[in-house]
Amino acid sequence: MAVYTDIPDQELRNFIAGYNLGRLTSCKGIAEGVENSNFLLHTDRGSFILTLFEKRVAEKDLPYFIGLMDHCHQRHFPCPQPIENKRGQKISHLAGKPATIVTFLEGIWPKSPEPFHCSALGHAMALFHEAAKDFPLQRENALTLPGWVVMVKSLLPDAHRVDPSLPALLEDEINFLQNHWPTNLPKGNIHADLFPDNVFFLDREISGFIDFYFCCTDFLVYDLAVAVNAWCFNRDFIFDSEKARLLMDSYCQLRPLQNMEKASMSTLLRGAALRFLLTRAHDWLHPDPTALVSPKNPHEYIQKLKFFRTQDQKELFP
Amino acid sequence: MAVYTDIPDQELRNFIAGYNLGRLTSCKGIAEGVENSNFLLHTDRGSFILTLFEKRVAEKDLPYFIGLMDHCHQRHFPCPQPIENKRGQKISHLAGKPATIVTFLEGIWPKSPEPFHCSALGHAMALFHEAAKDFPLQRENALTLPGWVVMVKSLLPDAHRVDPSLPALLEDEINFLQNHWPTNLPKGNIHADLFPDNVFFLDREISGFIDFYFCCTDFLVYDLAVAVNAWCFNRDFIFDSEKARLLMDSYCQLRPLQNMEKASMSTLLRGAALRFLLTRAHDWLHPDPTALVSPKNPHEYIQKLKFFRTQDQKELFP
Repeated sequence: MAVYTDIPDQELRNFIAGYNLGRLTSCKGIAEGVENSNFLLHTDRGSFILTLFEKRVAEKDLPYFIGLMDHCHQRHFPCPQPIENKRGQKISHLAGKPATIVTFLEGIWPKSPEPFHCSALGHAMALFHEAAKDFPLQRENALTLPGWVVMVKSLLPDAHRVDPSLPALLEDEINFLQNHWPTNLPKGNIHADLFPDNVFFLDREISGFIDFYFCCTDFLVYDLAVAVNAWCFNRDFIFDSEKARLLMDSYCQLRPLQNMEKASMSTLLRGAALRFLLTRAHDWLHPDPTALVSPKNPHEYIQKLKFFRTQDQKELFP
Repeated sequence: MAVYTDIPDQELRNFIAGYNLGRLTSCKGIAEGVENSNFLLHTDRGSFILTLFEKRVAEKDLPYFIGLMDHCHQRHFPCPQPIENKRGQKISHLAGKPATIVTFLEGIWPKSPEPFHCSALGHAMALFHEAAKDFPLQRENALTLPGWVVMVKSLLPDAHRVDPSLPALLEDEINFLQNHWPTNLPKGNIHADLFPDNVFFLDREISGFIDFYFCCTDFLVYDLAVAVNAWCFNRDFIFDSEKARLLMDSYCQLRPLQNMEKASMSTLLRGAALRFLLTRAHDWLHPDPTALVSPKNPHEYIQKLKFFRTQDQKELFP
């Protein structure tokens, strides 16, 4: 949860006056999202989210993120719609930061995902990959194998401060992934951060995906590997194979996996676990003094990575 | 800004089902308010604020706070309206905490109050005191002279860690106030915490007061003394006599002050400055490890108190 930037009164009024949104009647900082400052706006025309992009999001990537969101919305995938200002811009500046306004997406994210959530997620992910397929821009995934190699190297000297087993785990895992990471799987635009707080539900139906700010062009099944890591463990970080099966099966009903995608899944699950372990361990060791959030505990992903290292493909998805 | 309590999915659904609010379509923790956890709800029936009361608010005081808000709303003073659940309760429990739902109040609080804000505030305060006058419950102010005496005593050993001048300042000031604090001024139900973030505006008009959780029965002019402290200094904590004059004058147009109220104003301003200095110095020295907010800097109120100690009545309001 984070609101990093205070917006001076007059700057906010001028900014909103640049949109066809009518009168601003409320602006509340919301306590969700770790990377950016988000404000829930009420205007004469409805509810909107104003996002100020803080330093972790590169401004040069915004046309990709906002363009992809717009593209998916136009193809009727449920997600927020970026709003143009009177000058036709969907990205501008406020309080010295890049800023966007998108429509407010009703829905509530599940704090404790149940099997039906995972089933709905798999279906929606297949629709998302389909909607995002023909988006013309591309963005390389900064947080895949080459990035992990650099991060492991920089983390190693301090990794023992997170957990005594971590240095050996990181060295062994990065060696394995360098030898086994797939190179030739089907690629497309993926979300790459489909944690429960980015997936809203109304009753038992998904009302949409939010937070496109890790989206990138990478293996489609890597998105599934992230989602299995994020949704298919119980509270004690014990793997829930039923949830994983439901997620995978409902995805495959719309887009059946190719054999080489299936064969890579175990490696992708390890890679996805390492990716969140690396960023969490980094934030744990180097907390941002201006952050309003406590860094997330990296031990969750140490445990998940260790689990996936003990399982082969057939044990995971018999 | 603070959301301290996470609400489990099922508990939230059950809680909302206990109200006649229709379907819940959104629940977002909002990053405002230091004392409680606040969530902005969207339902079929509109927008609402759900508040979970954290440990600083005593549960026994809630009937006074919520009752007073309801009373003022019924008398057409602009403020949120507490909502009854299907069992006729305006206060119940959620996630192990006392909880209420009130209507959402549109409006934006001024980050940089201008003279017209102060003028509007004085007018609204007089209306508030009038609306609150015949509310039948009373609540003693826990943060007035007797409470300050106790707080000064407990702060003295560590006060030098806040500022080298603070121990002598506290001792001298509490002696002065014990000798000069008025005893016989007109009393009523007051807000006692009318900082800018508790006063919402739509354009140049006040849309309402929020956060009734320091309300109490005390001298009506003490509310003015708090507001002058909170609204009538510029960014460098230099007193702005024009703002103070506008605030006082617009209040007095609806409720002219008695002579003894005027004569006590300088002492009340010192008391109000000391009150916020004491709580801020306490929170500064004893930060709550579970708080998501940084404690506010107590130096602002050291400076304000020192200013009011140098001024007599005539200099403040010539």
